[in-house]
Amino acid sequence: MVSADGRASDDTVAALGEFGLIRRMVADRTQPATTLLGPGDDAALVAAPDGRVVATTDVLVSGVHFRLDWSSPEQIGRKAVAVNLADLAAMGAVPTSVLVGLACPGDTSVPLLTELAEGMWAEASRARAGLVGGDVVRAEQLVVSVTALGDLGGRPPVTRAGARPGDILAVCGRLGWAAAGLAVLGRGFRSPVGVVNAQRAPEPPYAAGPAAAVAGATAMIDISDGLLADLGHLAEASGVGLDVRTERLRVDRKLVDVGSALGADPLHWVLTGGEDHALAATFPSFADLPEGWEQIGTVLLPDTGVTVDGSPYERSGGWEHWR
Amino acid sequence: MVSADGRASDDTVAALGEFGLIRRMVADRTQPATTLLGPGDDAALVAAPDGRVVATTDVLVSGVHFRLDWSSPEQIGRKAVAVNLADLAAMGAVPTSVLVGLACPGDTSVPLLTELAEGMWAEASRARAGLVGGDVVRAEQLVVSVTALGDLGGRPPVTRAGARPGDILAVCGRLGWAAAGLAVLGRGFRSPVGVVNAQRAPEPPYAAGPAAAVAGATAMIDISDGLLADLGHLAEASGVGLDVRTERLRVDRKLVDVGSALGADPLHWVLTGGEDHALAATFPSFADLPEGWEQIGTVLLPDTGVTVDGSPYERSGGWEHWR
Repeated sequence: MVSADGRASDDTVAALGEFGLIRRMVADRTQPATTLLGPGDDAALVAAPDGRVVATTDVLVSGVHFRLDWSSPEQIGRKAVAVNLADLAAMGAVPTSVLVGLACPGDTSVPLLTELAEGMWAEASRARAGLVGGDVVRAEQLVVSVTALGDLGGRPPVTRAGARPGDILAVCGRLGWAAAGLAVLGRGFRSPVGVVNAQRAPEPPYAAGPAAAVAGATAMIDISDGLLADLGHLAEASGVGLDVRTERLRVDRKLVDVGSALGADPLHWVLTGGEDHALAATFPSFADLPEGWEQIGTVLLPDTGVTVDGSPYERSGGWEHWR
Repeated sequence: MVSADGRASDDTVAALGEFGLIRRMVADRTQPATTLLGPGDDAALVAAPDGRVVATTDVLVSGVHFRLDWSSPEQIGRKAVAVNLADLAAMGAVPTSVLVGLACPGDTSVPLLTELAEGMWAEASRARAGLVGGDVVRAEQLVVSVTALGDLGGRPPVTRAGARPGDILAVCGRLGWAAAGLAVLGRGFRSPVGVVNAQRAPEPPYAAGPAAAVAGATAMIDISDGLLADLGHLAEASGVGLDVRTERLRVDRKLVDVGSALGADPLHWVLTGGEDHALAATFPSFADLPEGWEQIGTVLLPDTGVTVDGSPYERSGGWEHWR
């Protein structure tokens, strides 16, 4: 059957069926050596050479975490995997594998879902992780739930709780780009593509997490909700204060240009914008920061909270669901 | 604020917020020794003593896999965890941990979600697994995505692919109960509670999976879609035929009674009903079946498919999404 717009109506997930769809999503893929048993059985088997496994899960919902009219399915797939792999990196872990739970309406087109899978594979491959299992079910709304597993290579995990007064505060990765992209998209524009694509799919610095762990990072966090919001979590868990020096923050020329065009403050995006999935970490003052890491502040005594140039940041920011 | 029906309107997930809800869901819980780092950081850390980890994910959607007017939130939580732990058991693995991705409308009540969490903890505890991490996000519909991790204790995984002609075919656990319960609920009844509760939350025989592996099981599968449907998957993966002998199948008195009352064939529920999450496995003919396992048939030469008393089963059955 072919509908008026030329699209074959049997080209939906309802027509193809769960098992047929899964076959298309996993066919002809190369798994890394850590995938000991991939998709197709009751469960997957993944190498955990360390004798421990780091595990995290994040759920993305259509209309909440992505918009099908703003992002391509490939970008959405990349984002769903990236936000999870960034959490592994923030513990100092190297990703090994990804599992995907996909809920979608029956009339979702098969090409959309195979392109989504393409994005998931691409991002997993970028981190040398396998896509080892999943589930596809019917729902009213597209929901992509990803779980990522990783290995610490014998190192202790770098939690949010180890920062000590006198440590260096540093970041690796982009800040404010996704927020600038969101502002652009929200005004109905589609360019500049640099910031817009940053919103559509982040590019977390995966290797910087394990590198920070090796360099002696005392605490680390993935910046998903905004720099100050996530530093607040780290400060609370560690029982320390954190002061960010704005002159240390990189405000890219692109952000300045977009800020000028939209009448917005690019520094505010850098301080509060989420979804870039940069990493923030603290290091002993004598540590050599690994490549890509830049000091942005210092760790202070407890109960001073998170400050910017020594003062509380007055403008609200940071993303919390439901608020 | 209190609404007309007396319910505090700040008793919703939207009012409490993501972080407050997560705190309530994980507060005061005891983790097993395998949980090296539990909820609260970017990712969890779980013991994988075997140097490998078994991983599976299953997604449950409101109105598709459960109904809030048929099941309590506690039962839904138990079911979401149970269907995943059964997949681990079917590989011969012992569960270690569970991660939960929860998507729900902002007006979902906090008591509903804490009761759901209570059910997830109860079922995980029953299998000595920890609930080590999760994510809570906003969506139009309640979606519960669970990932479960397990350990093989040095054994090879028992896949669907190892059955050989001449092997014994055996099952452990209940068959047809959830289907009978669904038939009862579908007619608007709420009893007998035995079958109704089997539909609301399965009770998979977790320990029977590793026991079968130790006893030399050559292939194994979790019966989620119906006995014949899942035996079809095992037969296909192993390249064998399977014959089920109906005189070997246990048709419980409860199923006979419900069948009589509803004018339905209880044997059809046993052969095709899903959602009980019993285990089916094949064993060498000389094997001693572990406790709880009962022979129901034999493994035949390839290309004979799945037969019942030597003939194809004519009535359709088995659950596939989208169809």
